[in-house]
Amino acid sequence: MQQQNLQRKVLRTICPDARGLIARITNVCFKHELNIIQNNEFVDHRTGRFFMRTELEGIFNDKTLLADLDGALPEGSVRELHPADRRRVVILVTKEAHCLGDLLMKSEYGGLNVEIAAVVGNHETLRALVERFDLPFILVSHEGLTREQHDNNMAAVIERYEPDYVILAKYMRVLTPDFVQRFPNKIINIHHSFLPAFIGARPYHQAYERGVKIIGATAHYVNDNLDEGPIIMQDVIHVDHSYSAEDMMRAGRDVEKNVLSRALYQVLAQRVFVYGNRTIIL
Amino acid sequence: MQQQNLQRKVLRTICPDARGLIARITNVCFKHELNIIQNNEFVDHRTGRFFMRTELEGIFNDKTLLADLDGALPEGSVRELHPADRRRVVILVTKEAHCLGDLLMKSEYGGLNVEIAAVVGNHETLRALVERFDLPFILVSHEGLTREQHDNNMAAVIERYEPDYVILAKYMRVLTPDFVQRFPNKIINIHHSFLPAFIGARPYHQAYERGVKIIGATAHYVNDNLDEGPIIMQDVIHVDHSYSAEDMMRAGRDVEKNVLSRALYQVLAQRVFVYGNRTIIL
Amino acid sequence: MQQQNLQRKVLRTICPDARGLIARITNVCFKHELNIIQNNEFVDHRTGRFFMRTELEGIFNDKTLLADLDGALPEGSVRELHPADRRRVVILVTKEAHCLGDLLMKSEYGGLNVEIAAVVGNHETLRALVERFDLPFILVSHEGLTREQHDNNMAAVIERYEPDYVILAKYMRVLTPDFVQRFPNKIINIHHSFLPAFIGARPYHQAYERGVKIIGATAHYVNDNLDEGPIIMQDVIHVDHSYSAEDMMRAGRDVEKNVLSRALYQVLAQRVFVYGNRTIIL
Amino acid sequence: MQQQNLQRKVLRTICPDARGLIARITNVCFKHELNIIQNNEFVDHRTGRFFMRTELEGIFNDKTLLADLDGALPEGSVRELHPADRRRVVILVTKEAHCLGDLLMKSEYGGLNVEIAAVVGNHETLRALVERFDLPFILVSHEGLTREQHDNNMAAVIERYEPDYVILAKYMRVLTPDFVQRFPNKIINIHHSFLPAFIGARPYHQAYERGVKIIGATAHYVNDNLDEGPIIMQDVIHVDHSYSAEDMMRAGRDVEKNVLSRALYQVLAQRVFVYGNRTIIL
Repeated sequence: MQQQNLQRKVLRTICPDARGLIARITNVCFKHELNIIQNNEFVDHRTGRFFMRTELEGIFNDKTLLADLDGALPEGSVRELHPADRRRVVILVTKEAHCLGDLLMKSEYGGLNVEIAAVVGNHETLRALVERFDLPFILVSHEGLTREQHDNNMAAVIERYEPDYVILAKYMRVLTPDFVQRFPNKIINIHHSFLPAFIGARPYHQAYERGVKIIGATAHYVNDNLDEGPIIMQDVIHVDHSYSAEDMMRAGRDVEKNVLSRALYQVLAQRVFVYGNRTIIL
Repeated sequence: MQQQNLQRKVLRTICPDARGLIARITNVCFKHELNIIQNNEFVDHRTGRFFMRTELEGIFNDKTLLADLDGALPEGSVRELHPADRRRVVILVTKEAHCLGDLLMKSEYGGLNVEIAAVVGNHETLRALVERFDLPFILVSHEGLTREQHDNNMAAVIERYEPDYVILAKYMRVLTPDFVQRFPNKIINIHHSFLPAFIGARPYHQAYERGVKIIGATAHYVNDNLDEGPIIMQDVIHVDHSYSAEDMMRAGRDVEKNVLSRALYQVLAQRVFVYGNRTIIL
Repeated sequence: MQQQNLQRKVLRTICPDARGLIARITNVCFKHELNIIQNNEFVDHRTGRFFMRTELEGIFNDKTLLADLDGALPEGSVRELHPADRRRVVILVTKEAHCLGDLLMKSEYGGLNVEIAAVVGNHETLRALVERFDLPFILVSHEGLTREQHDNNMAAVIERYEPDYVILAKYMRVLTPDFVQRFPNKIINIHHSFLPAFIGARPYHQAYERGVKIIGATAHYVNDNLDEGPIIMQDVIHVDHSYSAEDMMRAGRDVEKNVLSRALYQVLAQRVFVYGNRTIIL
Repeated sequence: MQQQNLQRKVLRTICPDARGLIARITNVCFKHELNIIQNNEFVDHRTGRFFMRTELEGIFNDKTLLADLDGALPEGSVRELHPADRRRVVILVTKEAHCLGDLLMKSEYGGLNVEIAAVVGNHETLRALVERFDLPFILVSHEGLTREQHDNNMAAVIERYEPDYVILAKYMRVLTPDFVQRFPNKIINIHHSFLPAFIGARPYHQAYERGVKIIGATAHYVNDNLDEGPIIMQDVIHVDHSYSAEDMMRAGRDVEKNVLSRALYQVLAQRVFVYGNRTIIL
């Protein structure tokens, strides 16, 4: 086997728990002469669900590998084989630059294995920043449109780029269920709060009024309900009485961008599994 | 002035903001030949309120000092002079030992300048632990009593010990407004969550169901509304998908006891000011 | 198979990395009709070493299970089968109570699956605390003894209790290499600093002089060199200019006890693997 | 007094501690009809030193204000009056983009009240990034030069821009004492470690070899000795056995940029006082 032909892929398995699953899956890999670079699994005993992420190296025959796995796995199994490649994303923004800026920097200078195919904004504000990085910025204004019309326009633009993920980097409008269903488990949002606290508008003002001593941010998948999707990553910082709502907002921006980029790092490495309203990160 | 006669006291001032306040107060201290060991102040520009904590050393004539301060301060000022002594507390518990155990250890072996006058429980569970530390444990059972009757019985026991503060160290019953009003700004609770999330019962199960990636605890003053008093201290720890609700509970216990004891440390040092629903910690 | 006969054990494997290891090991478990409750593995590609922790449930025939594993594993493999039982420890102390108190509380009231067989001190200071919890305290004074003699006396006392681990809960003397070699990978220390900073005496004073903004603690195995063993757990807290060395020490105590107890939790669950000077926690 | 003429300035006082200092200083401000927006002070009782930061609003007559303060303060006092304006910095870089990128973003899009006058690099690597933000990038190559010659060339370039501060944003060369002395208490460095651990080269590899469970970063003033200046800010993140040295480096970059930008925020607000080898942040 020549070194130069070796490929890396990630096998992801979700199935009903059963005895011998790890042996069955790794036996198949062994038979295909694939090296297991890293393997992580988790059994959720409450729901009787088995999750496994297997990072493989070797020469892949995807078709026979998947067929062999289908033969080894129980009914109702999901298995996916992903190339360990750079992923494509489209980023949605409104007016705030901090999360977008961090993603632009990391895409170009390292830290995230991601290609930003395009940035879509409902305002012109961030065009200059995006164009500085020689990337396309597309304005999809919501002016004079219903929410459905606007989301339709956005979806049309996004689908043109065939992204693996859609990142809401401080996109400040609520998305329609229809839009969300077009990108199942592909939309990732950064919420300016540690959910489930302070859902909705002006969370830093809510936090200030409540006199909290910590503020945070939550990165999560977007499903039908606003701010209710499966949580990927959360973090907080400490604040004190001297912080105004504006100070909290400024300090919170760093948490937001850090949490979004750390969440995205795990998603891009195919480590995040969604099951029900929870995530398993392997 | 002889070293041995020197006393330490903490002067706390809350008043409407006005020009020259710091000068006026420190001038009075200067005139009384009191050394300022530490001085911290804060102006809340939103409410136009001035807060100052002044740690003083010298020979005190409390009466003339307070009279001079009254002459120097504007209408509507509150000023308090506290001896920098050990404080007395009564602790309320139900069945969980971890917060109580930490307070018992720190009261006896250092870490908190506090005398535990008594521990009051609505169950017998923790009597043995308290008596190991040679402190009185008083059972005030709620069996067969209305909430009002039970709280009355408790208040009667507590008042016998004349505590400076009443600490709810995992006391798991809701207190009546009448009880709360008997100890204004004197009741401190540890809430097994980072407020305002997961108010009410079984917060760790709520947190598990929501799939959160951080859990926390909040120490706060108790006012009329359950879990709604001014927050003193909060902290969190990171959890992941492998945590069951029980694991979260176990890990959360350390956060709870740490947050309660850190909050109490600030309260005992007369550093915590309550204004509206917020605290200022100087 | 009757539910009541089921046992839980932890299988730990360390061996040279090779293709198909996970399959081989889990195939053996499968053949023995053992359920894998949890499985975690890690390959250190730098050293070519494979580590796996397998939590098993079923009816165990230890002898044939281990023989089957030996047949399946490559030369130079280490595999251990541990009952998932309560572990016994002996705790060594000097004068400080905070780590000991936390362990006493958690052993008795939950949080650590550990039986404290005895506490050994080189001073009488903590006898009262230990006896409050109805546990044996043994004074092994170092007065008038060489370090070797003292350590010999201690080892003799400790070995009488046949502990699984020896916990240094702020034991403030350096141990002889001879003592350390009698308890290989069984001695766990809490160091009042985040190693490798501030090795040696008075670390909080060193930290104060250096003007650091964070202080921390490190739990580690003890090997020949003071403060140089494999690190299990570390944590820090933020401090500022207002902290004296004594304030740092007081605040540091909570970090120390938290880190020690979290490290011990992982060790007791058979999750910590030592390899060279590093730990792998599965 | 007309609203539109009001100015904001920050008065910073360092002097030997003495009774009545706060009164004396605030009396002077009061006499000048200046509003105290915020006042913070600290007495270091070990060195007998008094530090005060006073944020003032009003109409300033700098000359008489400073003269009045000189009359009120003891011998050996330092007092400075700074306009609360945007500050100018020159940034020094080598090849790594992450800290520079964060500063560029925050200077242009908010988060730091700073004007980046120029970026000086000893490699061309980051020219494109700087020019994207329409700022001057100046290459000062060290090729074929002694350290003294190179530092002289850099100092000449830097002084042309008359910066308030010189930021080492991952500038990877050691500076000469001569260079450092030209910018006293004006050079701020981000060190890729939590000092005092892992001084010197390749700290992430040192950290990996030592098997640490936390890695961090330190922002500090630069004085004569490498990595030994007064610490302004530190933070850490948790890592585990699965991190290679490269993973630590990647994760560490976010800590580095966060710590540098938070330190700079405090410095720009004139909150950081240097005394000996420690900082006081008011």
